[in-house]
Amino acid sequence: MSERADTVLNAADSWFNKYVAVQDAPEGIFKGVSDRFNGITVDSNLETCHPEQFSSVLQKSLSHWTDNKKRGIWFKVYLNSSHWVPELVNSQFKFHHAKDNFVMMYRWLPSDESPNIPPYAHTMVGVGALVLNDMNQILVVSEKNALIKGSWKLPGGYVEPCENFVEAAIREVQEETNIKTKFESVVSLRHAHGAGFGCSDLYIVMALSPENSEIVKCDREISKCEWMDIEAYLQHPKVHETNRNFVRTYLQYKQNGLKFICKDEVHSVLKKQYNIYQVEADSTKLPNSSL
Amino acid sequence: MSERADTVLNAADSWFNKYVAVQDAPEGIFKGVSDRFNGITVDSNLETCHPEQFSSVLQKSLSHWTDNKKRGIWFKVYLNSSHWVPELVNSQFKFHHAKDNFVMMYRWLPSDESPNIPPYAHTMVGVGALVLNDMNQILVVSEKNALIKGSWKLPGGYVEPCENFVEAAIREVQEETNIKTKFESVVSLRHAHGAGFGCSDLYIVMALSPENSEIVKCDREISKCEWMDIEAYLQHPKVHETNRNFVRTYLQYKQNGLKFICKDEVHSVLKKQYNIYQVEADSTKLPNSSL
Repeated sequence: MSERADTVLNAADSWFNKYVAVQDAPEGIFKGVSDRFNGITVDSNLETCHPEQFSSVLQKSLSHWTDNKKRGIWFKVYLNSSHWVPELVNSQFKFHHAKDNFVMMYRWLPSDESPNIPPYAHTMVGVGALVLNDMNQILVVSEKNALIKGSWKLPGGYVEPCENFVEAAIREVQEETNIKTKFESVVSLRHAHGAGFGCSDLYIVMALSPENSEIVKCDREISKCEWMDIEAYLQHPKVHETNRNFVRTYLQYKQNGLKFICKDEVHSVLKKQYNIYQVEADSTKLPNSSL
Repeated sequence: MSERADTVLNAADSWFNKYVAVQDAPEGIFKGVSDRFNGITVDSNLETCHPEQFSSVLQKSLSHWTDNKKRGIWFKVYLNSSHWVPELVNSQFKFHHAKDNFVMMYRWLPSDESPNIPPYAHTMVGVGALVLNDMNQILVVSEKNALIKGSWKLPGGYVEPCENFVEAAIREVQEETNIKTKFESVVSLRHAHGAGFGCSDLYIVMALSPENSEIVKCDREISKCEWMDIEAYLQHPKVHETNRNFVRTYLQYKQNGLKFICKDEVHSVLKKQYNIYQVEADSTKLPNSSL
């Protein structure tokens, strides 16, 4: 991980955990919270400023931070302080990222060091589900707003913020079809560029086993939904080759005794929860089972 | 994929491919470009407005769009039009996402339908590299700004916008250590929440084989870098258990003849390039090689 990655982690610490204002900041400037990369973050919900004073307080703050060799300067501007935005732009701030109720703006102060500000997330993550029942059928949907009209696809959708991939797949299948499922194996990843909002797109396909059979489709999103014979699916003109290959790949995994599992782990020092995905081979199907 | 996902794709179409203004828009309002979900996107670089007129043009536009049953209204506001931001906030717009030179704001117009606006990307993707040479050594780095001081880690870093994962790993290894590599196999994925900027974090570990041996470390980011005997690495108190497990996992893949490969594909209809990642078993090491 680069210094840039660490800058991000640190920035997250200061924004989302605890806001400890810089105590030795002189009167009449923004205090902000410092980070271990010698940056400052000001939060408009935690430091107020009369609109008519904003410009002069900002200029004094920038002078102070420049004198004190501060590096990345961050302003988290909430909707109710949006008049700060044009003032910050006038002082050479740029946009970094935004969410519903705030925009994060930044300026790199040092003139003798090139900017070292990491870009925000630029990968949309979606999941697709291969739901195979014990009658050799696969659960397929046709979407109301499909890019290719009438095509049969795997149920799925975007992963929600702070959602695990397996949970997202199970949720999407239930929302779209009312079929409850449990996780069997990841099958494949598909990565492409130039998707929604100019982001890249990572599509994670996983195999799930159904726990019921009666389909109740989501009328808002789905025009058709059915259990299709796998043999028919593998030949169907309205199924794209990439989707057929996901099924072929999974059938090969099953034949070869491979599972691409998801394990829960906790980092022993940082006490952070992880999902670890890795391939496990069924030792009874492999010639080398000594490990 | 849900309707929301399609909304995103469509929005990307209108923003990044072609801006075809709505031709039948009356005089004195923003034209914008329509999308197939009955939304409108206005780009401040493509439609100018005198600052003193912005508020009244916006109100007239919102009335017109409401009368015409428009749904999601998007304003892409560049730095040089940042005075639009407080005006849009006054008219109930919120922030959606932002990049260096623009912020995207939106408002959901229908009062009889719940908002159907997908969130922006919220997953930071990073790569780590297991670089193993033919003397059973692994390339390890110690970072200047490590969260855990003095720990040995895998070289790696964040994937850049529009970069493929394999290219990112090869680039990071070369930047940090000057070792040139080629791809062997993906090893594991690690997914966690609460990382930088409040995003989730996906860390993709892949095995690379080195093409040279002389280390030249990047002084800005790396304090130490060396080839470490794998046996020492697997016992080292300054190597975290998760990182040791990545190596154990890869050694098992090798023993079992498994590779988690990356293939280039092109979508036959959309003509879009994909990377497909899947596990391949060496048939000579597997008992069932008929498929």
